[in-house]
Amino acid sequence: MSDLLSVTRAMELVLGYAGTFGTETVDLEMAAGRVLQQTIRAERAQPPYDRVMMDGIAFRYGSDLPLLSHGTQRAGAPGQALPEGAACLDVMTGAVLPEGADTVVPVERLVRDGRMVRFEDGYEPRQGQFIHRRGSDCAAGTELLSGGRRLDGPALAVLAGNGHAQVSVSRIPSIGIVATGDELVDVGGPVRDWEIRRSNEYALTGALLSRGFNCIERSVVPDDLPLMMAALREQLSRHDVLILSGGVSMGAFDHVPRALSKLGVERVFHKVAQRPGKPLWFGVGPEGQRVFGLPGNPVSATTCGVRYVMPMLLAGQGLCRGKTHAVRLKAEAELIPTLTRFLPVRVGHDETGQAVAIPYPMPTSGDFSFLAATDGFVELPRGEGMAPRGTVALFHGW
Amino acid sequence: MSDLLSVTRAMELVLGYAGTFGTETVDLEMAAGRVLQQTIRAERAQPPYDRVMMDGIAFRYGSDLPLLSHGTQRAGAPGQALPEGAACLDVMTGAVLPEGADTVVPVERLVRDGRMVRFEDGYEPRQGQFIHRRGSDCAAGTELLSGGRRLDGPALAVLAGNGHAQVSVSRIPSIGIVATGDELVDVGGPVRDWEIRRSNEYALTGALLSRGFNCIERSVVPDDLPLMMAALREQLSRHDVLILSGGVSMGAFDHVPRALSKLGVERVFHKVAQRPGKPLWFGVGPEGQRVFGLPGNPVSATTCGVRYVMPMLLAGQGLCRGKTHAVRLKAEAELIPTLTRFLPVRVGHDETGQAVAIPYPMPTSGDFSFLAATDGFVELPRGEGMAPRGTVALFHGW
Repeated sequence: MSDLLSVTRAMELVLGYAGTFGTETVDLEMAAGRVLQQTIRAERAQPPYDRVMMDGIAFRYGSDLPLLSHGTQRAGAPGQALPEGAACLDVMTGAVLPEGADTVVPVERLVRDGRMVRFEDGYEPRQGQFIHRRGSDCAAGTELLSGGRRLDGPALAVLAGNGHAQVSVSRIPSIGIVATGDELVDVGGPVRDWEIRRSNEYALTGALLSRGFNCIERSVVPDDLPLMMAALREQLSRHDVLILSGGVSMGAFDHVPRALSKLGVERVFHKVAQRPGKPLWFGVGPEGQRVFGLPGNPVSATTCGVRYVMPMLLAGQGLCRGKTHAVRLKAEAELIPTLTRFLPVRVGHDETGQAVAIPYPMPTSGDFSFLAATDGFVELPRGEGMAPRGTVALFHGW
Repeated sequence: MSDLLSVTRAMELVLGYAGTFGTETVDLEMAAGRVLQQTIRAERAQPPYDRVMMDGIAFRYGSDLPLLSHGTQRAGAPGQALPEGAACLDVMTGAVLPEGADTVVPVERLVRDGRMVRFEDGYEPRQGQFIHRRGSDCAAGTELLSGGRRLDGPALAVLAGNGHAQVSVSRIPSIGIVATGDELVDVGGPVRDWEIRRSNEYALTGALLSRGFNCIERSVVPDDLPLMMAALREQLSRHDVLILSGGVSMGAFDHVPRALSKLGVERVFHKVAQRPGKPLWFGVGPEGQRVFGLPGNPVSATTCGVRYVMPMLLAGQGLCRGKTHAVRLKAEAELIPTLTRFLPVRVGHDETGQAVAIPYPMPTSGDFSFLAATDGFVELPRGEGMAPRGTVALFHGW
């Protein structure tokens, strides 16, 4: 098996075809979780005016006390002028600092007698206090966001605060999930003794949705070459990416590679030195469609989906950071001499912030029942014997 | 300030009102990311039959060679009987093991001459190999999923594989986000020198959506008591949770606590010993509505949203695990003697899997422009001087 493609090389080949799925403009309301594809600069200086930071009064530092309040500078109103002399204006948080004032005293420190205002005993304001100075956060035109990042809460706030009611983001590719396997029946119907319910499409859908890929069509094709070809031709015409599961092994009824080849999908590789997931197939269609043929076994399909399909899709969005980071194994784990091992694990952080992974070896790659107890898998390089407790490995989250 | 409520106590009070928002039944297609609220048991033994694991032939171990192939056991077909004598059946991955066979030899190991089949030179099958035994993953009725977990890919696959076309999940609460502040204008329109664009509602929306809370209505109320009361009465009648921002300070125009009180929303607390976010207000409405009054400053509003609102909402779904774990500071950070400090950070994992946080102190709590460069914040307990590099702190992700 040493002539099989390595995981690293297979991933390089897949990422070489990641390309891009283009960009589109969406309303800010719909942009949460999308990947930004433009540079966002400050619309104005931030803050755009000398901004009062506390409810209280604004006055000219050094004025004689008491101060006479000449009214209120509300937030959302143009700045008033502070009259000469021992004067102040009541101010609200967020208001413009009145012209002529240079210091704010919060309401908790004030003692009032009608319109006359003084400070509580012993209180000494600092000149300039509680004023958020115009432009102190940034000048107009400062770069605030750059392309290739997910739009989380703070980024959405920056877009809103700088007047971007619409925003350019990576287009989400259209993805077809295609199940094969005549033993498979749907979740809703009856199931006979020799049949199994289809589940891979749900595992893949879950992985896709949790990464923001929500343009998904699911379909089923039979293990029959002409019927499969007709169905796959249709799917290829509708989607940027096809994710097939099943039918990529060596059997007489494993029609997937044959059908794809006849449809002009060029094989990039078939089989990778890994377990589970050795029969993985990857190719590129006549119009650049990326086509993955995942093994049909549920653990294999889910693992290959997370290890290959998701990174390719994320790279196609312009993102390099997925659900991946280093972890330390909490128990030893058996290595495979000739194959990279993908070992399901439960992960967490200990009380010092060290990421740790508890191995959950699955008895067979057909056993998905207990995969739901795990958070993802670690990638163990080929090797002899055991990887000891404490080994650092790369974790991939479901 | 030592008589202010501690962060820990404030959180306890909030969680004390988390309660539940009920359950609902949804189609499996719509269940991704939802929180399961039922126990899922194996519909049948898994696998439900002795399942062939490789494409190849099935035979009776110890038969004389060559074997005569009597046809094909396809996947998705009832099990055939293997004839007596030196017989085999071609088998597909996923097929039922033919009755009378006990061993599978993969196609790569076979040498064929018409219907006669032998093994490649020197190949010695193990009796029972490549058969995934009925019930070896689990017996019928085995508990596979329990309530209170998010439905990720593997969990969705378990639901599908066990015939759950519909599933009981936590109801997502209806959430009203209410902005106050007369200086605030909308993202799409013109903005005058003394005005600022509304951004908190977008930051909160991003945080909510990334946690699966997609039942959100946004509205704006003016800084005027009667108008605010009318608007809040309407919002209270429509939502399980209200998240207000602004209007909770000490100013004459900070009408939020007054308006809520008049509407029968009982204050649980006002002000917490924390920075940013000291003016945080929390109360409970006449029909159990949870009402948060967040400070209007963007950094304060976003931080309080993540620190208090999100954990309450997640607890109300039956989840205890949020975007929270321990990290080590990569640089020293100044403590505040009387207040818990929420310090924005960028986080990552080093090459050993240690979670690390780089502090990004914000100049003021009004400065949100650079918050978008961070991943969340760490929580530093009140204290004197500096927390040294390497300090372990709790991280909360945006």
